[in-house]
Order: sequence, then C-alpha cells, then structure tokens
Amino acid sequence: MATILDGKKAAEAIRSQLRDEISRLGKKPGLAAIIVGSNPASKMYVDIKERTCRETGILSERYSLPEATTESGLTELIKSLNSKKTIHAILVQLPLPKHISEHRILSAIEASKDVDGFTSHSKSQLLAGNESSVPCTPKGIIRLLELYKIPIEGKNAVIIGRSEIVGKPTALMLLNRNATVTICHSKTANLREHTLKADIIVAAAGKPGLVTAEMVRQGSAVIDVGTTKVNGRLIGDVDYEKAREKAGWITPVPGGVGPMTVAMLLENTLQCYKNIEGEK
Amino acid sequence: MATILDGKKAAEAIRSQLRDEISRLGKKPGLAAIIVGSNPASKMYVDIKERTCRETGILSERYSLPEATTESGLTELIKSLNSKKTIHAILVQLPLPKHISEHRILSAIEASKDVDGFTSHSKSQLLAGNESSVPCTPKGIIRLLELYKIPIEGKNAVIIGRSEIVGKPTALMLLNRNATVTICHSKTANLREHTLKADIIVAAAGKPGLVTAEMVRQGSAVIDVGTTKVNGRLIGDVDYEKAREKAGWITPVPGGVGPMTVAMLLENTLQCYKNIEGEK
Repeated sequence: MATILDGKKAAEAIRSQLRDEISRLGKKPGLAAIIVGSNPASKMYVDIKERTCRETGILSERYSLPEATTESGLTELIKSLNSKKTIHAILVQLPLPKHISEHRILSAIEASKDVDGFTSHSKSQLLAGNESSVPCTPKGIIRLLELYKIPIEGKNAVIIGRSEIVGKPTALMLLNRNATVTICHSKTANLREHTLKADIIVAAAGKPGLVTAEMVRQGSAVIDVGTTKVNGRLIGDVDYEKAREKAGWITPVPGGVGPMTVAMLLENTLQCYKNIEGEK
Repeated sequence: MATILDGKKAAEAIRSQLRDEISRLGKKPGLAAIIVGSNPASKMYVDIKERTCRETGILSERYSLPEATTESGLTELIKSLNSKKTIHAILVQLPLPKHISEHRILSAIEASKDVDGFTSHSKSQLLAGNESSVPCTPKGIIRLLELYKIPIEGKNAVIIGRSEIVGKPTALMLLNRNATVTICHSKTANLREHTLKADIIVAAAGKPGLVTAEMVRQGSAVIDVGTTKVNGRLIGDVDYEKAREKAGWITPVPGGVGPMTVAMLLENTLQCYKNIEGEK
C-alpha cells in the first residue's frame, strides 16, 4: 500500500512556521485578492485564502468587482495596489470574464508583488530555470515530493495536462530538478503507455477517474491535482482506492495538493514582503 | 531509406519568396546585429546572417563591440536602436561575455523588434501558446516538419536538450501542435527507451554521434540540431549514415536545420517590420 502524501498535515506545519516567522516581522505582510464576477468556485477559493492569511498573520484585503468591470478599470486598481505600501502581494483570481485579457491584466502586476508567478517576467524566469516566483500549485507539488524525499533526478515524470497554471510550470520545475519530463494531454494517443513508464505521475486534467490502477506503475508517486465537484464531493483525476494498492506514494483528494497550494500562497506572500521590505 | 529533409532547398524557396515580398514594400526592413567580443563562431554566424539579409533586400547593420563593453553601455545601444526608425529588428548574438546579464540585455529589446523571441514578453507568450515571436531554430524545425507534411498531432516527440533557445521552445511549439512531448537531457536515465518510442526526434544536445541507429524507431522523423566542429567539419548529434536507413525522414548536417534557422531570421525580420510599419 502506498504512503499517503498528507498535504493537510504538511501544509499545517508550513503555516505554523510561517506564522512564527511573520509574528517576528516589524509589520504585517499584506495580500490583496481581486475577484471579478460571481463565480462560486472563485469565491470559495478566495474565502479559503483569506481565512488562512488571517490565521497566519497576513493582512488580507479583498476587492470584489462586478462582472461588468472593464479591463481599464481593473488595470487602474492593480496600478493603485502596485504602489500601495501596506500591500506586498497581489492575487487576481482566475478565470476573469471573457471581455478582459488575462495576459494584459496579469502583466500589469508589479513583478515584486507577483504572488502567483503569473507575470511575463516570472514566466520567462521559470523558462530560464529561475524559480524566484512560481505558481502555487506546482510549487506545492514539488514541496510535497521533497518533503517525502521522493527521488526526482533522472526519473521519468509524466504530467497529464498542459495548462499555464499547473501542467507547464510543473513540467519546467521537474525539468529543473533533472527529471525526464513527458507532457501528455487530451490529444495523447496512448496515455497508459506513458504513465506505465512514469516514476512520478502528475494528473492535472480535471477528469475524474482518468488515471486507473492499470495505468500506474508499481511503486510510483501519484500526484492528483484534479478537483472536480461531483454530487457535492471533490473528486480527483485518479482512482485513489485502487491506485494506492500499486503506487509507492499517493496524494488524497481532498487533503493532498489543495492545502499545499494555499500554504505556498502564504509562503509566496512572505517572499513578496521580503522582496519589498528586504530580508531584515 | 529516409526522405532527406532538404533545409537548404526549403530555405532557398523561403528566401526567394521573402525577396519578392520585400521588393514590393515601400522601404527596406532593417536588422541590427549586435556582437560583443571576438568569439569566432559568433562572428561566422553574424557574417552569414548579414550576407543573407543583403541578398534578401534587408538593410543590415552590424554593431561590433569590444569584450570589455559594460552592461549599461550595451543597454544604451539597444535603447537607441529601439527608437531608430530604419531598424525594425534587433539581434543580440549570444553568448554574451560573462559580466553581462543576458536576461537583462534581452529584456531591454522593444517587444516589436524582438527578432529572436528572446524577450520576457515573447517567452511568456510562447508559454501561453502564442507564437507571435518565437526563436528562429525551433521555428525552422517546425517549418521543415510542416513543409514535408510530417504528422505532429497525437504523435510522440522526444527532444534531446533543454536549452532556452532550442529545446524548451521546440517542446512548447510541438505541444501547441498537440504532440505528446518528452524532454530528455544529460541526466535522462535511459535515453534509448525514450527515443525508440518517438515518432519525432529532435536532437539538440551538441554531442556528435549521440543518437545511433539503434535508438531510432523505424519510420520516424529525425531532426538533427547538433553542429559541433570536428576537424574543421560540422558534425550533428545523429549518426546520419546509419540512422537514415531506419528513419522515415532525416535532416542532414549541414544543410538541414541550419539554413532554416537563417531563413526564419529573415522571416522574423519581415514580421517585425510589419509589426511596426503595419501590414500595407
């Protein structure tokens, strides 16, 4: 039976360390969360982020804007937050309404306040192998692998999903750690052929039950990033009950990658604080 | 026996089309090539680029700076070229001397004049799946595959090498075309296991003879980006003579990817011209 990668417990330990460190700072790190429209999932995520920020000693400000907000209006808000002294980190909850360019909005965020690694600067840095600002979910995945001392260098990693927020940055971060990385997606001809060679599988397709036990190599590490709501329950991309009998390590959903993502947001907020206030 | 992917001939056809198109423009597209120090390979590349520019009707200016040039001096030159009306495209020949930050220098290039896809803006765009400005070698590789109608979607592509100039952008461009992409490198445990599954191999490691015939799957497309000088001859990464007996398609070295890279530089220069002068 697989070792369960307990993201909930790992995230609690990280939050506790961050709380201690933050309590010793001269002032509070500040995170501004911007949410446009009334997507219930977005609201839920921002609620969780706000609550854990407060519990960790981070000042949290929420800016809820109506669906009809213009791109220029949103840009103005970001510019004002860029220069606001009490705010060190700016989070724009995605997705944005279709009439607003995510690329232009994210590019308006000052690089030092880019808590999610979403600016052009951060992305091009990651492409160059520099992880000074990386998205929270990939960072949480890597942290879990490292905490459980799962070997990465020279191993085969298979990522299922090629989003800009999870798939591609996770691939680049595993590549930085010398894994051989394969990126699979909906057009991949024979997914099982790839996953059966994988020492590490990162399932980030958002398709419940996509990864069955038959697709998992004995002793591999299975990281499930999927979170699809089915009948009110969060379901991952992996058939957890059966896959855990073959995997060497496996993340549960919920309680795996999710809490780590939030913990990394807090860590990135502190990093932004240090970028701006200096490492005192 | 494999079909030979004749980059020399394909590049000639592209140059001829570009020459026609450029001759009908109101004015000449202008490319500024900056070279710092006296690396003989860099000088050779810039010589070739300058000559083909002239042959294609592109105004070519060369700025040769001494090895001891400061970063701020180089930045000033780029700024002046950013605003120079007769220059539409700026090429900084890499590598730069160690005391100069390539990242900062490339970031100083105005996005519309980024002929090599090296700015943060271009890189983050490529990561997002937008190929408005991509590096010349990956673009030349994709163009060759397309010219010879080699299937990409749903196929397994294996890239050997993970540089920012070739490996990573080629991986992203193949991913954009729905290939399943594996990135291998010096720390890959069993390279042959990966290449034997590949429908497309892109060898960009700079190690002569790295890819032997035993590593090539019957009928696959083998793209050789390697150019190592051995006893005055350019040698690729692939054992060409033997691999061509198994491959379905193969590029020679020289005469494969090299001429395509130069042709794409000319095409990108024209694209920069259109960015600035408009599509008249």
